[in-house]
Amino acid sequence: MKKYAVGVDIGGTTVKLGLFDREGRVLEKWEIPTVKREQGCHILPDIAASIRDKMTSMNIDSSDIQGVGVGAPGPVDDEGTIYKAVNLGWDVINISQVLGSYLDLPVKAANDANVAAFGEMWQGGGKGHDNIVAVTLGTGVGGGIIVNGSILTGATGAGGEIGHIHIEDEETESCGCENHGCLEQYASATGVVRLARRRLAQDQEPSVLRGGELSAKAVWDAVKAGDRVAVQIAERFGEYLGKGLAAVAAVVNPEVFVIGGGVSKAGTVLFDYIRPAYEKYVFHGCRNAEFALATLGNDAGIFGAAGLILNE
Amino acid sequence: MKKYAVGVDIGGTTVKLGLFDREGRVLEKWEIPTVKREQGCHILPDIAASIRDKMTSMNIDSSDIQGVGVGAPGPVDDEGTIYKAVNLGWDVINISQVLGSYLDLPVKAANDANVAAFGEMWQGGGKGHDNIVAVTLGTGVGGGIIVNGSILTGATGAGGEIGHIHIEDEETESCGCENHGCLEQYASATGVVRLARRRLAQDQEPSVLRGGELSAKAVWDAVKAGDRVAVQIAERFGEYLGKGLAAVAAVVNPEVFVIGGGVSKAGTVLFDYIRPAYEKYVFHGCRNAEFALATLGNDAGIFGAAGLILNE
Repeated sequence: MKKYAVGVDIGGTTVKLGLFDREGRVLEKWEIPTVKREQGCHILPDIAASIRDKMTSMNIDSSDIQGVGVGAPGPVDDEGTIYKAVNLGWDVINISQVLGSYLDLPVKAANDANVAAFGEMWQGGGKGHDNIVAVTLGTGVGGGIIVNGSILTGATGAGGEIGHIHIEDEETESCGCENHGCLEQYASATGVVRLARRRLAQDQEPSVLRGGELSAKAVWDAVKAGDRVAVQIAERFGEYLGKGLAAVAAVVNPEVFVIGGGVSKAGTVLFDYIRPAYEKYVFHGCRNAEFALATLGNDAGIFGAAGLILNE
Repeated sequence: MKKYAVGVDIGGTTVKLGLFDREGRVLEKWEIPTVKREQGCHILPDIAASIRDKMTSMNIDSSDIQGVGVGAPGPVDDEGTIYKAVNLGWDVINISQVLGSYLDLPVKAANDANVAAFGEMWQGGGKGHDNIVAVTLGTGVGGGIIVNGSILTGATGAGGEIGHIHIEDEETESCGCENHGCLEQYASATGVVRLARRRLAQDQEPSVLRGGELSAKAVWDAVKAGDRVAVQIAERFGEYLGKGLAAVAAVVNPEVFVIGGGVSKAGTVLFDYIRPAYEKYVFHGCRNAEFALATLGNDAGIFGAAGLILNE
């Protein structure tokens, strides 16, 4: 039982890092740029150098560090091998082995969305639970599933890809994944805007949403102000997301759904629209699942990464 | 490492039992009636007595038995407590403790559908894989999910209840669970008959299915004989089940779907109808999942129950 762990969250623009104590407190938090040139071959050495510099400046010995956890943007298997992280220029790399050999420390790696879910379970909106589904409503809809305190990776690292559950047969536009009618097309930030556009085009009913720039935030602000058209948009959003989460519940039966990402900034008003649809469609044995907001924001990744090490 | 394990599958009419060696071979298989009177209080003592008798008659000492695994019809938590097994007359009972104390052996219990899934992973259609979804197409549609070689129980024992994924908004009849449009309403044996009835009522197109008694078997036999109406029914079935399994895949990303239950007796022709819809709706990262038939039939429960003990 050593004193510290390091959490690393590799993004397409910056790498976030954090030094954590065993209780899950972040003692130091910093960032370095993600240097993607030359097939991203500098990224792991840069991370190693940055961790070593920080240990020196904080006077921390390697023997006090239990290990380094890493979240990376791509499918990562249980041995720490990532497959085709296009955002980083990587092909196939075993992060645990490579970074571990630079640092001479144990390294565990997992997919970034799953790591963020793990963080929310450990120190965030899912604290106290060990069966959670984390749902990130951002540009897309991501998911991370924790079963009995462990990340559900899946056979090819696609566990928790709940944004691509098919939810609407009538959709004509295609999703980023090239399918039609994915949950992501309605419940992401861009999905909310699409729903708003379609609703506004239906008739001329007055709404504060007319004329201004449409955004998920504008829609939810209008919902809170009681705008009738915005409420109808929120109902569609809730119908889709509640139905999708009901399907997820019939598969993994979580204790709690932890909702994060940009759209979740609207707050618990989301639940007023998600819950009725969820309860309508869900198997009765899963009806009591809780809904909670994610609390760690952009730090969920470094929390979860450190948590992978400290919760072994 | 002891020589044997006992697998027990408690049904509403009979209790199936099997003695297994470490390699997963069943050495002896027998049944006793399920005595449900007096709130089912005789069931566990009867099982204990039957196991003791068998050990005596086969000259096997208690010290050679690693433990007893049990599958039971209801939600069972990870401590072996079952909640309201209405079929058995039970309220809340810790099967592991009660049966364990009768036998003075370690006992592990889990839900029967999940145990059967575990059996199919260990010695059946999912052998060689450790991330599987077992789908039972019987009177209803049941499921059992194995993640990294362990049963996914879920927060309230409802993990793998994939028959109650909502799949059809237009359904007017209600499912046994009281919701409308559950996967079970189309992909179970009774669901296939319902689809057939609806198709036959649409027009007067000739079909071997007209006049005779409708059953899932009759429909699949007609499909194999090239009956055009039957093929259309199979396409509807495949559309629903393929879409439902695509949703399951986006959540748990299995290596293989193992299809069992009465409807699966039709054989691999099922996959000709499930796979096109599955591939149409599934997230690309899950497209390569295999489809296999369950191979253990009604013995999946005793296999899986013994497997719980022998794969600890």
